[in-house]
Amino acid sequence: MTDTNREIRLAARPKGMPDDSTFELVETPVPSPAEGEALVQNLYMSVDPAMRGRMNDVRSYSPPFEVGETLTGGAIGRVLESRDTALSSGELVTSNRGWREYFTAPASELARLEQGAQPLTHLLGVLGGTGFTAYVGMLDIGQPKAGETVFVSGAAGAVGSVAGQIAKLGDCRVIGSAGSDEKVDWLTRDLGFDAAFNYKTTPPDQALDGAAPDGVDVYFDNVGYEHLQAAIAHMNDFGRIVACGSISGYNSADPAHPRPGPDNLAFIVRKRITMRGFIVSDHADRRAAFRADMERWLAEGAVRARETVYEGIEQAPAAFLGLFDGSNTGKMLVRLAPEG
Amino acid sequence: MTDTNREIRLAARPKGMPDDSTFELVETPVPSPAEGEALVQNLYMSVDPAMRGRMNDVRSYSPPFEVGETLTGGAIGRVLESRDTALSSGELVTSNRGWREYFTAPASELARLEQGAQPLTHLLGVLGGTGFTAYVGMLDIGQPKAGETVFVSGAAGAVGSVAGQIAKLGDCRVIGSAGSDEKVDWLTRDLGFDAAFNYKTTPPDQALDGAAPDGVDVYFDNVGYEHLQAAIAHMNDFGRIVACGSISGYNSADPAHPRPGPDNLAFIVRKRITMRGFIVSDHADRRAAFRADMERWLAEGAVRARETVYEGIEQAPAAFLGLFDGSNTGKMLVRLAPEG
Repeated sequence: MTDTNREIRLAARPKGMPDDSTFELVETPVPSPAEGEALVQNLYMSVDPAMRGRMNDVRSYSPPFEVGETLTGGAIGRVLESRDTALSSGELVTSNRGWREYFTAPASELARLEQGAQPLTHLLGVLGGTGFTAYVGMLDIGQPKAGETVFVSGAAGAVGSVAGQIAKLGDCRVIGSAGSDEKVDWLTRDLGFDAAFNYKTTPPDQALDGAAPDGVDVYFDNVGYEHLQAAIAHMNDFGRIVACGSISGYNSADPAHPRPGPDNLAFIVRKRITMRGFIVSDHADRRAAFRADMERWLAEGAVRARETVYEGIEQAPAAFLGLFDGSNTGKMLVRLAPEG
Repeated sequence: MTDTNREIRLAARPKGMPDDSTFELVETPVPSPAEGEALVQNLYMSVDPAMRGRMNDVRSYSPPFEVGETLTGGAIGRVLESRDTALSSGELVTSNRGWREYFTAPASELARLEQGAQPLTHLLGVLGGTGFTAYVGMLDIGQPKAGETVFVSGAAGAVGSVAGQIAKLGDCRVIGSAGSDEKVDWLTRDLGFDAAFNYKTTPPDQALDGAAPDGVDVYFDNVGYEHLQAAIAHMNDFGRIVACGSISGYNSADPAHPRPGPDNLAFIVRKRITMRGFIVSDHADRRAAFRADMERWLAEGAVRARETVYEGIEQAPAAFLGLFDGSNTGKMLVRLAPEG
């Protein structure tokens, strides 16, 4: 083991799309655990689109990152040394201390992994926050009924790919949008989507004309803007919009003056549409049901998960930026050290 | 009684704001009722913002008006001659045959008025469709809780003025927007609103900074656009938006390219907002409760209703157009003949 830790700090708040000047890779000594703490080496860290919002100086459900501070995010690590009886050296833990190779933390802030998930990376994706988001968003917020048409934007992403498969399990007709022909093929050939389109070559409104001849009953929105407008235009009466994210607007150059929204919100009234935003952390009461269902679906092959894994903490900024140009299929992760 | 009927037809579909060329006043002979029909003389007719949408050639929950046809809308009339045993001469009826002085219709399409409502005009307003819309929208869609802050746009209109008073009955703090200082005074002095502002002199976003220091929990939207954007910006977590109408966009010059919507829809996710559209005709199961509650509230003086009444069918187009420049306070009606 080295005695040097590397971590990534927020160097400056980005205006618009983050770039190299947003991040700073810093070397620090590997810390020593105090009484009640453990020293952890991270194996994997998660990058998520929602982290972009925290780079702005705007209050939201999570506080903004501070300039000069090490970024945070979901991670899986191995305990190298423990000074608390609750944890033992060699155990695997999850934490919110991503974006760094080594850290110490009170044992009470580390969640020991139960035996189970294989591959381990699933715990940051389909069995973690993104899978749980898809589960709550589709089942509890969208409430699709058998036979209904469900449209998922960003359908090849970590949340969208799982959300669409959950709707398929409910006997819905499922349509997905994605940013490449290869992803479109993955959705229809491997994941069982009934239809999918490449929004970079076919505008969503036009694509839905063909893919949703009977209209859309549930729209799971990860993208916003043109996608949201097209969905509203094709929505059936009493349709539901699951407002999960709007990634196409996260990098507006001027956060104080973002892009205008859809021009057809009058349909919300006429079609009696319900649009509901949610944050998965409000739904902790559903976590046990999610884990049980998702582990079973994965074991049965009813849900399939793909991950895009970058190597080394120096690639973490590239992995994060890759979320916005569609470099990932499924969950985007960074491997910081070998599993064993 | 004259033997000449006057009625108003849709002369041409308006581009943007309707004007004189939109309407045609036509004289026809007063018709004679066939077996099973009654001849009715209209006393009052309603004009409603939603009629504007039906002047476009766009399918919605109500079919579009046809060019050359007589317009329709809520009306109260007196039976002059009946050839059906269900109705007697002299009885009062409601119908959807406004925009004309006389008409014949099958008795089955006419609803005889029970004794009760005074003034009669309340049956087209606070005890009719607009009052029912306010009731369902505020109580069933908005679901305000005691102590919450409720913001109503278009609060001096037929729906908004009643919606705000219903929220006050639920012990909410109620803020209203209106288009004149006189209306603002009416809201705060006569109707008990806690705060109100003139959106023509104070932008809604700025007004809410002062009027809603603790944020907005329920927004009852009659106006859309700047009002909706300001409400979203001031919304508290888990807030509800009652999507009732967006009158400020109804006269967009090009219906195919209306004004863009709010640029801050990302808050729908972050604040876990629920935005729900509704059409009151879907809620017929609530009509009996509405009538009982509203008649009691009116009798107690807990809800007050104002009406703006234009005189004569030749003023019906002006009354309709007046809805869009704020000529009405409360319900806008046209008196077609004296009550008795």
